[in-house]
Amino acid sequence: MHPPSSPISEFDLIERFFKTGIASNITNPSLSLGIGDDCALIKPLPGEEIAITSDMLVEGRHFFAGADPEQLGYKALAVNLSDLAAMGAKPLGFTLAIALPSVNTKWLESFSKGLFRLANQFSCPLIGGDTTAGPLTISITAIGSIPTEKAIRRSGAKLGDDIWVSGTVGDAKLSLAALRHEINLSEDELKNVAHRMHQPTPRVELGIQLRGIANAALDVSDGLLGDLKHLLKQSQVSAEILLAALPKSTSLQKQSIAIQNQFAACGGDDYELCFTASSKQRGAILEIGQALNLPLTKIGCVAPMKNNQVQIRIISADGEVLSDADSAVLLKSFDHFSV
Amino acid sequence: MHPPSSPISEFDLIERFFKTGIASNITNPSLSLGIGDDCALIKPLPGEEIAITSDMLVEGRHFFAGADPEQLGYKALAVNLSDLAAMGAKPLGFTLAIALPSVNTKWLESFSKGLFRLANQFSCPLIGGDTTAGPLTISITAIGSIPTEKAIRRSGAKLGDDIWVSGTVGDAKLSLAALRHEINLSEDELKNVAHRMHQPTPRVELGIQLRGIANAALDVSDGLLGDLKHLLKQSQVSAEILLAALPKSTSLQKQSIAIQNQFAACGGDDYELCFTASSKQRGAILEIGQALNLPLTKIGCVAPMKNNQVQIRIISADGEVLSDADSAVLLKSFDHFSV
Repeated sequence: MHPPSSPISEFDLIERFFKTGIASNITNPSLSLGIGDDCALIKPLPGEEIAITSDMLVEGRHFFAGADPEQLGYKALAVNLSDLAAMGAKPLGFTLAIALPSVNTKWLESFSKGLFRLANQFSCPLIGGDTTAGPLTISITAIGSIPTEKAIRRSGAKLGDDIWVSGTVGDAKLSLAALRHEINLSEDELKNVAHRMHQPTPRVELGIQLRGIANAALDVSDGLLGDLKHLLKQSQVSAEILLAALPKSTSLQKQSIAIQNQFAACGGDDYELCFTASSKQRGAILEIGQALNLPLTKIGCVAPMKNNQVQIRIISADGEVLSDADSAVLLKSFDHFSV
Repeated sequence: MHPPSSPISEFDLIERFFKTGIASNITNPSLSLGIGDDCALIKPLPGEEIAITSDMLVEGRHFFAGADPEQLGYKALAVNLSDLAAMGAKPLGFTLAIALPSVNTKWLESFSKGLFRLANQFSCPLIGGDTTAGPLTISITAIGSIPTEKAIRRSGAKLGDDIWVSGTVGDAKLSLAALRHEINLSEDELKNVAHRMHQPTPRVELGIQLRGIANAALDVSDGLLGDLKHLLKQSQVSAEILLAALPKSTSLQKQSIAIQNQFAACGGDDYELCFTASSKQRGAILEIGQALNLPLTKIGCVAPMKNNQVQIRIISADGEVLSDADSAVLLKSFDHFSV
């Protein structure tokens, strides 16, 4: 056992925390070669293709300095599995590139515990990566499989489609606001919503069930309406959204209407799926929600563009279309570089 | 056109420098869906599997602060393509996750110029990624294809195999030593060896040609003998290496014998391929070298382990086996965390 401050080589590090991680025992028929060589090898089953996504988490930007390493390990993988879910892909494996300011074995133990807890849950082994010294930065690439032509793309939304969202939205933002003391929550409420922020549930099973049912989907990482706009742009359609229909937790429902709307419409970090589907699929979608014990809520519909512009028309509780100015306030979604 | 210091959103950033990058026009029969959705989609051709590798470069660790962004863009991809080459895989595409301290459009233009120059050379499009604010960190995941069962693994070295290395080794280390003023080089010489450090040539074509010929391979990133040891461990064999046989550039040959040996045996960042093959393949290997105009040099052979220990026995120019102490000095390979 190395004391926390002792030097430890990169190779020892990989060996101790990652290669021999509990997830290395996962067998996977598509995985020809796992961690330890120059590359991992994946052979999709006949009739399947591979989905690939990369996300990077930076200390001070995506998480507070001193964040709980177990939660961080979990979340770093969760946000990537969420991208797989949004395409309807099944996790196959992931690579981890991590820069660490120092080798702290206790931190690494906790980090890998959180990481592999989620990896094991989805039978998604670590198949390669890189460790280096540097400011704490975690970059994961997740690989999934999906039957050919079954991937749910952002570009598939059709006029008249219903627009749906899974679970509730706005809780991660509520948690952040409470942690910043901008909002008061009871201890129990904070615990609940903080769990949603730190340990979001990637909607992998939902994504898989939506194959052949949803026409378009994405995951809500930067804020529901802001993210929805990317989907609309790629599909070249507009949307009407019923503000009062946005699904909110009981904790969020205790806040002012202004905060409810703002957080639900634009709070980031929820990792729910937003998808569109023909109205003929309503029954099938509600059945999927029941089977997964996950609320699926219809929040609006896909509409034609006006003047060749992609627009989100937001309908207030009293049936009025929000003015451009009011909409603009709501649509200020999280952006990593904007000021 | 944004002025260099103006705020620019993440989405604009992706759009401007990466999505519309020159490499986005590359068509690739295995690429079902490129950048812009939650995931990219890859469908290997029948009889092929997918190779995946991730590497991370951190400012101050892998490159100097203020490093030429064009060289950096090139190198960040090159080190990943080198890993593909070491398995014999053909590049298919790559994801880029990048943390940037600020949005500097001039820097980004140069960075993407270097990145896409190499990407285009190998018909390897950018297929996804992530941009965020943070200390400059570049994490690339490269994806390649390879006929099933043809990947050259580290674990395949056989007793009696020849050990080979491509090109010359030690130049990147020589360049680093000169830039640190530990060694004097003429301006022309520095230019040559600095090019080797900043813009290494991933030996992709060599890797592909070695399918079915090499029994084991890896790329030399941390130092020839240190890296070789990983291959030996995975193959459970030892090696004998002829120190005088290590291929050195004319610039390195002008240095003292001690420096020649140290840099060639243990200098990192060369990105040459080290591989083992049956002696029956000598003719085929020399022909490949000639066809590619790339020297391939036999530097030793695979030997049995002694006392169950993987060892590299280093043979000096006069035929003596180096003592353990002398070998240890040579074998101090670069490690990202050791002190």
